[in-house]
Amino acid sequence: MNLTRIQLDAPYLLFLGDVQGHGFAKTALGIAHWVPERCIGQMRLPGCDVDCGLAELDVSAAREAGVRTAVIGVAPIGGQIPPAWGPALTALARAGINIAAGLHSRLTDIAPLVQAARQAGVKLIDVRVPPPGLPIANCQPRPGRRLLTVGTDCAVGKKYTALALHRELLRRGTKASFRATGQTGIMIVGEGIPIDAVPADFIAGAAETLSPANHPDHWDVIEGQGSLLHPAYAGVTLGLLHGAQPDAIVLCHDAARTHIQGFGPNYPTAPPRVVIDTVLAAARLTSPDCRCVGISVNTVSLDDAARERLLGELEQDTGLPCIDPLVTGVGPIADALRN
Amino acid sequence: MNLTRIQLDAPYLLFLGDVQGHGFAKTALGIAHWVPERCIGQMRLPGCDVDCGLAELDVSAAREAGVRTAVIGVAPIGGQIPPAWGPALTALARAGINIAAGLHSRLTDIAPLVQAARQAGVKLIDVRVPPPGLPIANCQPRPGRRLLTVGTDCAVGKKYTALALHRELLRRGTKASFRATGQTGIMIVGEGIPIDAVPADFIAGAAETLSPANHPDHWDVIEGQGSLLHPAYAGVTLGLLHGAQPDAIVLCHDAARTHIQGFGPNYPTAPPRVVIDTVLAAARLTSPDCRCVGISVNTVSLDDAARERLLGELEQDTGLPCIDPLVTGVGPIADALRN
Repeated sequence: MNLTRIQLDAPYLLFLGDVQGHGFAKTALGIAHWVPERCIGQMRLPGCDVDCGLAELDVSAAREAGVRTAVIGVAPIGGQIPPAWGPALTALARAGINIAAGLHSRLTDIAPLVQAARQAGVKLIDVRVPPPGLPIANCQPRPGRRLLTVGTDCAVGKKYTALALHRELLRRGTKASFRATGQTGIMIVGEGIPIDAVPADFIAGAAETLSPANHPDHWDVIEGQGSLLHPAYAGVTLGLLHGAQPDAIVLCHDAARTHIQGFGPNYPTAPPRVVIDTVLAAARLTSPDCRCVGISVNTVSLDDAARERLLGELEQDTGLPCIDPLVTGVGPIADALRN
Repeated sequence: MNLTRIQLDAPYLLFLGDVQGHGFAKTALGIAHWVPERCIGQMRLPGCDVDCGLAELDVSAAREAGVRTAVIGVAPIGGQIPPAWGPALTALARAGINIAAGLHSRLTDIAPLVQAARQAGVKLIDVRVPPPGLPIANCQPRPGRRLLTVGTDCAVGKKYTALALHRELLRRGTKASFRATGQTGIMIVGEGIPIDAVPADFIAGAAETLSPANHPDHWDVIEGQGSLLHPAYAGVTLGLLHGAQPDAIVLCHDAARTHIQGFGPNYPTAPPRVVIDTVLAAARLTSPDCRCVGISVNTVSLDDAARERLLGELEQDTGLPCIDPLVTGVGPIADALRN
């Protein structure tokens, strides 16, 4: 497979910059959750209000602790590296620590950082770089089964749910692969395609490349991106959906999200039922039998009673298993996949 | 505006390679039609069955005729430059002729061609290169009126219809700009954004950049791309639609097209009414009052009676003005824009 492949030397320092809001620190939080054994510290600049629960390390403490790679764990809208981070990143490189990032702007385009890295003999690793030679989608049916997570917005648990479902399927003895489509997933598993960085004509072709023909009883569990009802990113979502040709989708939602994150009052999030219907209508162009097999809700904002009420109402409204992967696990959705 | 801007020295030689089928020679045919005064010849390799109606020139004849730029006028699926074209392109460069192309693969990546161009002192001009620094879409309303052409497939007249409507609006004294989103349109007017080459996250932001805030009575006439029901390219179409925030769409269709071109029997083209409804439903996310103002049909495959019957049936079915821009002109659609 023609994928983006990376090798990040552990242990990691998670660099959080001056980010405000957990939604923009998905990469750091995802790495801290899924590969905690590789993480030994975090570094935050003034103003940062995100905490990964790791030891606070400055440059010299990071060096002493044996940090091999500083991972930029923040993904601001647009994916640019703020100039204010420059001095801290340069100091890390000078201390002999590799630096990895998954933003649209590249570490290797920051001249002082490139110079510091060269002098110190450390690597700058840009993860959000699509592999060369991607094809246009051919759009023909292929064997193997595929599940795609979709969402009511960005940052609602699509990667988390896909990773949790993949783990659950393996636990049950089902053949399955997690397919990463974003920088965090690629950092966690070491390969994938950063689908939102692919030239627009190749989105669906990249999705086909990422989830190729396979054994008829093998499941690719594909990390979704954006939302088909997201005003800025829906094109990415649609191309991924068409190329993935999913047999099944799982809708991901955040119970506290009333509006598309960062796009103002004109964009309320659509009800789960509406998003499911919209996605299935679009999916059927390339995958005529696509169905929704469950809803995965982030209910961290709710107490137990409110969570049970919400999940119960959603189940009644949609007839689908509705879960919070952190609280109830994804078992009911894995059950639904068997049917 | 942060656009792709190019300067192609005339006169042009249209290079057709060994292309078969007019649908893949859109660039050459578009340039020959819209800026005939810049074209003095064509060059075809064995197997080519497309004819732009220009003088057949070999390399020495092109040089003698004063050709300044050879324009690669072919856009095969995937946009790669076939190796078989190499010798002819290199010979043109050696003859002192600049070479321009709008494919995904770049002239400047073909080492022998780069060397020949350097030795001969000619330019290699890659048109399908997005401008740097594109923003993520902000998705907020902006003044100015915008029309986007959409289609039942690729190569059904979206560029032609947009250029014809732009010309008709100017003729009537309406303030209007043509906004090019593809290589051919950019070659014709000298600027635009090749929307299908933009990194996927930036499709809608590129469309906003291309059609910025303007006077309330000014029309941007935006060239559409692909089709929302195209299995390989719909992501491009959706991002462009959301970023363009069109007040009006015009559906383009080819009366002879029964299936999505090049994607086999699984993909019949959808009926115009279905495509319009699908596009309007998606458009309303960012442009709540978007409406369809007409259907532009390529009826070259029909005789007069069949054309009149088809356009009449479509008008009855949709209640919209239905025209063939080459036969009837786009006047009825320009009329509908006033209402």
